[in-house]
Amino acid sequence: MLPRGPIGVFDSGFGGLSVLKELQRALPAADFLYLGDNARAPYGTRSFDTVYTYTLQAVRWLFDHDCPLVIIACNTASAKALRSIQQRDLPHIAPERRVLGVIRPTAEAVGQLSSSGVVGLLGTPGTVASGSYDIEVAKLHPGFRVVAEAAPMWVPIVEQGFAASDGADWFVAEAVDRLLARDPDIDTIILGCTHYPLLYHKIRAAVPESINLVCQGHIVAASLLDYLQRHRDIDAAISRGGNTLYCTTDDAEAFAARASVFLDRHIEARTISLQ
Amino acid sequence: MLPRGPIGVFDSGFGGLSVLKELQRALPAADFLYLGDNARAPYGTRSFDTVYTYTLQAVRWLFDHDCPLVIIACNTASAKALRSIQQRDLPHIAPERRVLGVIRPTAEAVGQLSSSGVVGLLGTPGTVASGSYDIEVAKLHPGFRVVAEAAPMWVPIVEQGFAASDGADWFVAEAVDRLLARDPDIDTIILGCTHYPLLYHKIRAAVPESINLVCQGHIVAASLLDYLQRHRDIDAAISRGGNTLYCTTDDAEAFAARASVFLDRHIEARTISLQ
Repeated sequence: MLPRGPIGVFDSGFGGLSVLKELQRALPAADFLYLGDNARAPYGTRSFDTVYTYTLQAVRWLFDHDCPLVIIACNTASAKALRSIQQRDLPHIAPERRVLGVIRPTAEAVGQLSSSGVVGLLGTPGTVASGSYDIEVAKLHPGFRVVAEAAPMWVPIVEQGFAASDGADWFVAEAVDRLLARDPDIDTIILGCTHYPLLYHKIRAAVPESINLVCQGHIVAASLLDYLQRHRDIDAAISRGGNTLYCTTDDAEAFAARASVFLDRHIEARTISLQ
Repeated sequence: MLPRGPIGVFDSGFGGLSVLKELQRALPAADFLYLGDNARAPYGTRSFDTVYTYTLQAVRWLFDHDCPLVIIACNTASAKALRSIQQRDLPHIAPERRVLGVIRPTAEAVGQLSSSGVVGLLGTPGTVASGSYDIEVAKLHPGFRVVAEAAPMWVPIVEQGFAASDGADWFVAEAVDRLLARDPDIDTIILGCTHYPLLYHKIRAAVPESINLVCQGHIVAASLLDYLQRHRDIDAAISRGGNTLYCTTDDAEAFAARASVFLDRHIEARTISLQ
């Protein structure tokens, strides 16, 4: 039997906090261990090998800290590393534990939202290049297709505190227009990066009202509740004290200060090192 | 006697290529070995410890590849790591080799440019927080002072290919205005990041004509020529075939493609790993 431990939530930096927030709301009694690899963020523009290596190091670290289940709350890492870790590494390093991503539940959800079957995706260059949403959506919803464009400036705009500035408008409009110009039948757009909810109001204003905008936090939380119903062994291995520990690979104080933007409340963090 | 080898040029990513270009022009017969730590870039928002650790790994790697001299062509790394490496590490790991940065030569140059003695600095958050320019300028030019503001969006704007876009204008004006509002006597502005020359025309248009703008490439190249005149042992240890080898810690093909923006010509690169 698995020792009890917190649910691990991994992200390249701060973005996963927008997912964590919804997970905490859905599972208020559960313990969480959040790990942000801020010292090496952002992942969105890095190669497959690099993202895979970094993500595997993070997953191992979370397993070493007793997590029975790890949520990769980063689209780039889910896109570039999850499948390899699930299929190649997990059977050897921890066959009884689980690693889940954010792409599959999102791909499931668009089935109910899109009538035209043409789904837009805005994400980091890494997520877009991976083609992971295309593959998952096509597998789950035959006849659907994904039209994707990268929005590489949105993460730095959010991380540097310019999400509410007028300067963000040009970059929001530029990426949205580039996507919509690709196909007039897009009726649903996936915000395929955990930073993007912080630009929600600007994105909503730039996208015609008739088009659905999909944020991932709620979807991933609902999907996890469902998963735990179906996997009682994993559910039983989650420790329940309602606590969250925040760890980062970079400066803890800076992390805690910036994390408040995502969480809307004060937290403390500690620095750890990955290798 | 030192074995002969190339001049090492280190940067967190692409920015150092704007310095390398001027070094190649000043020393056309010398060999160079460029190393960009793209897998962990950008350094500008990272903690002191992290930047120090990464920079020391890079310097060791360049020494292992026979560089008698390493130029840290990254302002953040020069600000946060150079002094520790020169004073604490170099005497143990390679007492006969040299590591030079970009801040000291820049600080020397402003002495001839500023009449008011009030020097503006635009740089990454890391360079600004380090206070390194303040210290160097005050030491070399008593009575001078540095007024600094961070321009954290300029690096992603350049790296993502938006340097010529209208979207860059708001972020250029925002940082310039924030700096100039600090002190009406600023008559010289240091562009304290190797990416910023790619935004030169926009910055020049946002800054009043009466104010000097200081780019680092020429300054660092002139300073190196002078240094080699005074250190003949280091000069003699530089191999001279006129070749440059480009290495990156991330994807080589992507590096080569993006490097052409900085160098204005096609190059090839290889991937190496730092630890």
